Amino acid sequence: MQTYQVEKLKINFKTLEEFKKFREYGLAELSMLEDLEGNLIENNSDSPFYGIYQDGKLVARMCLYHVDAKYDRYFDPQQDFLELWKLEVLIPYQRLGLGTALVSYAKSLSLPIKTNARNRSAPFWKKMGFQPVRYNPERDRGESPYVWLPEGVSLKD
Amino acid sequence: MQTYQVEKLKINFKTLEEFKKFREYGLAELSMLEDLEGNLIENNSDSPFYGIYQDGKLVARMCLYHVDAKYDRYFDPQQDFLELWKLEVLIPYQRLGLGTALVSYAKSLSLPIKTNARNRSAPFWKKMGFQPVRYNPERDRGESPYVWLPEGVSLKD
Repeated sequence: MQTYQVEKLKINFKTLEEFKKFREYGLAELSMLEDLEGNLIENNSDSPFYGIYQDGKLVARMCLYHVDAKYDRYFDPQQDFLELWKLEVLIPYQRLGLGTALVSYAKSLSLPIKTNARNRSAPFWKKMGFQPVRYNPERDRGESPYVWLPEGVSLKD
Repeated sequence: MQTYQVEKLKINFKTLEEFKKFREYGLAELSMLEDLEGNLIENNSDSPFYGIYQDGKLVARMCLYHVDAKYDRYFDPQQDFLELWKLEVLIPYQRLGLGTALVSYAKSLSLPIKTNARNRSAPFWKKMGFQPVRYNPERDRGESPYVWLPEGVSLKD
């Protein structure tokens, strides 16, 4: 099985140009671009994105957000966790294990992970060792939260 | 221009079966099904979903969630608002104005509306009179929030 190198992405014009190829391009990316253009952030500052390059191009990415324990409504004991979103592999590079490589990287950080299993992606998340939570309309508001639990952590409620 | 009848959907086995045709089928829908099967909720109880029927089938839907003012981080003055998501029209019925009909219905309720402009849907939301917010990573966590403001309401900050 091939292994892929997962890299923490820096915010610079090249990365932000590469982001435009992804379907989930929105206000978050536009905001980084404006901040860079307006010199509100430095070139090559840290971003919450991780990615995989192939053939010199960014072909897979995810956003990993470190959430403070005070916002945790999922885990027992209540603790810091990672929120994972915008996991996306460009179409010609799908089904090669790049999504799995990104998620494995996130798991290697040894914090609980929460994601939203959108667009019928639940089978992928189950394969990755994630499990659905008990749906709570007030908390989850239409999301399909799936979580990954490191040893010693369980689901609240 | 054709007008479509927007209906508030009741939770029953027929509706939940029709939901399976939509791409954004997840824990929210499964939870309603389990609650109905377990008699935790009554047949035909209210749901937060609205839909349009054509040819006897549910072909478009959205979820509208009434959010209490205490959770409002978008509007000035701070107030109750609607969160709109899972707006989806089945493929053979797209480009006929059904999405527009659903959003117009939401606007007729005269509360501010917040949605997440996913998958490059920003041009649609702009056409509907929505505007992007100033992206705030802590609050918006990778979303692309677009809002619609009734008269007398403005954006916070």
